[in-house]
Amino acid sequence: MDRRSILKHAGIAGVLAAGAAPAVHAQAAIRWRLASSFPKALDTIYGAAEVFAEKVNAMSGGKFVVSVHPAGELMPAFGIVDGVQQGTVEAGHTAPYYYFGKDDTFAMGTAIPFGLNSRQLTAWYFDGNGMKLFREFYDKYNIINFPGGNTGAQMGGWYRKEIKGVADIKGLKMRIGGFAGKVLTRMGGVPQNIPGGEIYQALEKGTIDATEWVGPYDDEKLGFYKVAKNYYYPGWWEGGAQLDFYINKAAFNALSKENQAIVEAATAYAHTEMQARYDARNPQAIKRLVANGAKVLPFPKAVMDEAFKQSMSLYTELNDTNPAWKKIYSDYSAFRKDANVWFRFTEANFDSFMQRQKL
Amino acid sequence: MDRRSILKHAGIAGVLAAGAAPAVHAQAAIRWRLASSFPKALDTIYGAAEVFAEKVNAMSGGKFVVSVHPAGELMPAFGIVDGVQQGTVEAGHTAPYYYFGKDDTFAMGTAIPFGLNSRQLTAWYFDGNGMKLFREFYDKYNIINFPGGNTGAQMGGWYRKEIKGVADIKGLKMRIGGFAGKVLTRMGGVPQNIPGGEIYQALEKGTIDATEWVGPYDDEKLGFYKVAKNYYYPGWWEGGAQLDFYINKAAFNALSKENQAIVEAATAYAHTEMQARYDARNPQAIKRLVANGAKVLPFPKAVMDEAFKQSMSLYTELNDTNPAWKKIYSDYSAFRKDANVWFRFTEANFDSFMQRQKL
Repeated sequence: MDRRSILKHAGIAGVLAAGAAPAVHAQAAIRWRLASSFPKALDTIYGAAEVFAEKVNAMSGGKFVVSVHPAGELMPAFGIVDGVQQGTVEAGHTAPYYYFGKDDTFAMGTAIPFGLNSRQLTAWYFDGNGMKLFREFYDKYNIINFPGGNTGAQMGGWYRKEIKGVADIKGLKMRIGGFAGKVLTRMGGVPQNIPGGEIYQALEKGTIDATEWVGPYDDEKLGFYKVAKNYYYPGWWEGGAQLDFYINKAAFNALSKENQAIVEAATAYAHTEMQARYDARNPQAIKRLVANGAKVLPFPKAVMDEAFKQSMSLYTELNDTNPAWKKIYSDYSAFRKDANVWFRFTEANFDSFMQRQKL
Repeated sequence: MDRRSILKHAGIAGVLAAGAAPAVHAQAAIRWRLASSFPKALDTIYGAAEVFAEKVNAMSGGKFVVSVHPAGELMPAFGIVDGVQQGTVEAGHTAPYYYFGKDDTFAMGTAIPFGLNSRQLTAWYFDGNGMKLFREFYDKYNIINFPGGNTGAQMGGWYRKEIKGVADIKGLKMRIGGFAGKVLTRMGGVPQNIPGGEIYQALEKGTIDATEWVGPYDDEKLGFYKVAKNYYYPGWWEGGAQLDFYINKAAFNALSKENQAIVEAATAYAHTEMQARYDARNPQAIKRLVANGAKVLPFPKAVMDEAFKQSMSLYTELNDTNPAWKKIYSDYSAFRKDANVWFRFTEANFDSFMQRQKL
């Protein structure tokens, strides 16, 4: 095998061995593998990893190449933390809340029920303490994290029957992302873990009563509107769901300062562009969904209030039992309080005025 | 003078002469000058240009250096289009709407009354037709544009007396950014052009009745709360004011592909970070302003409605008289219509629920 092939196939160990210690020189050919938690069909989320790779390639003049691999190709969709921690891949693109089973603190890296919205979460990372606190948290996983996109506020999912009050949540079998399932359980619901590809059938057969996924643009692809017409908002458990790029610490430290800066800027570009894709494409998708029969409905106030109450009670428990959670949540929740006071004035007022106009 | 000094002092002509034609090689030392429209004291807006320069420097390993110059140092605050067009500087950082006197179309590059909000404008640029349309528009100015930050929805300014209805706008002498002054005039107000450093005195003496600037974090520095207590929202003329990096076309084309990609990613990083700074710092500033006696008040509905009506009437006139405006506004306004339908559902509903809670 020639040197290039060795680099291509050997992963981190190969790069470290081939590069001059202690840092791989900027001129050296660097090949990274990035494992995504998402299938290629999700051009928004999966696309963010492709954008990252394109930008790194372009900025380095092809001397730093990142190959992007969809879920399942190198490791399972939810194996990214393990894969990056162990150095099986140099990089991953995933939603931190998938790993709440390791530590509930991960959930705050994506979205927790009634958490920060997209702009607030980005602000907390870039100008508040979010980045600093999560860098500390991820250190023991050998991970250096970078924000890698946000979906914006998600929809509350598709329901076979209308939700008229809290009683309709009791016994509701719903496919819902992990951490939010804890709140659904407290409300009497029955969260279900079903892979993306199997949700449609389960909903059609009535094995489940409801499912959430992301928002109009992604949901449309999975066709839920054909078998469950009631499309609720807001997705109170994902007011602004962030994705992250996870970089293996040793791989990152082996980069030159130039390439480290290139990785950082490429992630920021992907972060911004992914939110832009959702914000530009969801408006078209919601129109098509409504034309195809979807009934877009708000959750009743009583359901929202009960979900809020149960969420806050869960956070109190976590504060009492998980020091890592408590440390980050105390900063996160103080930021959230102040941000919501401010956003209520000019941002909300401008937006609500515009939303009432005939444009 | 040694080669480095020549490059430093000669501007674009020097870089082009010193580099190997047709493209400056990635290894060559490149020195750009960036003229900002802002004073150093505005660490949010001016800071975005510094962040851009830092990232370019870091990604190029010091081989591509951008020096950042505050307003007035190389050219007047509003001389950036001329400076970049003529190649006096390679780059500028400014608010496009300052140049509506050249062509009203510039205004859409920052904000027009009742225009897109911050996320919508970014989405229109990155995933809609905004970037493409403005690249075409700027071509005759020898400018290649990149989004370079957003302030978010601005506040509606500081008023010596309360605004209780449309009658209170008649004869109101108000310092207000250029293009929005056209709408204020249609409402019977009297827009004033006053440099930032002289506004406070004019407001204190009563030479003007009101002024707008940006939002809590920037406004606090200028001390307006000491002489005009009534702080209105929303700033309907700036629902999401974008800054741009303007790059001289010849200077950009002379860069290697790598450095072009580095410039692009550095602007995207600065774009994201500037909004984050405002979103993280405004919440603290509004608390301090209120503690110092500011009265935070919404514009009456009648004032908002009249401003909206006059704005739409102005846009109809511009559609009839300015083909460049019409081409871009037709795309912009279609995007705005769809975006506001979508944002009304889950985004607005999630935010308004959060804003009503005791957090």
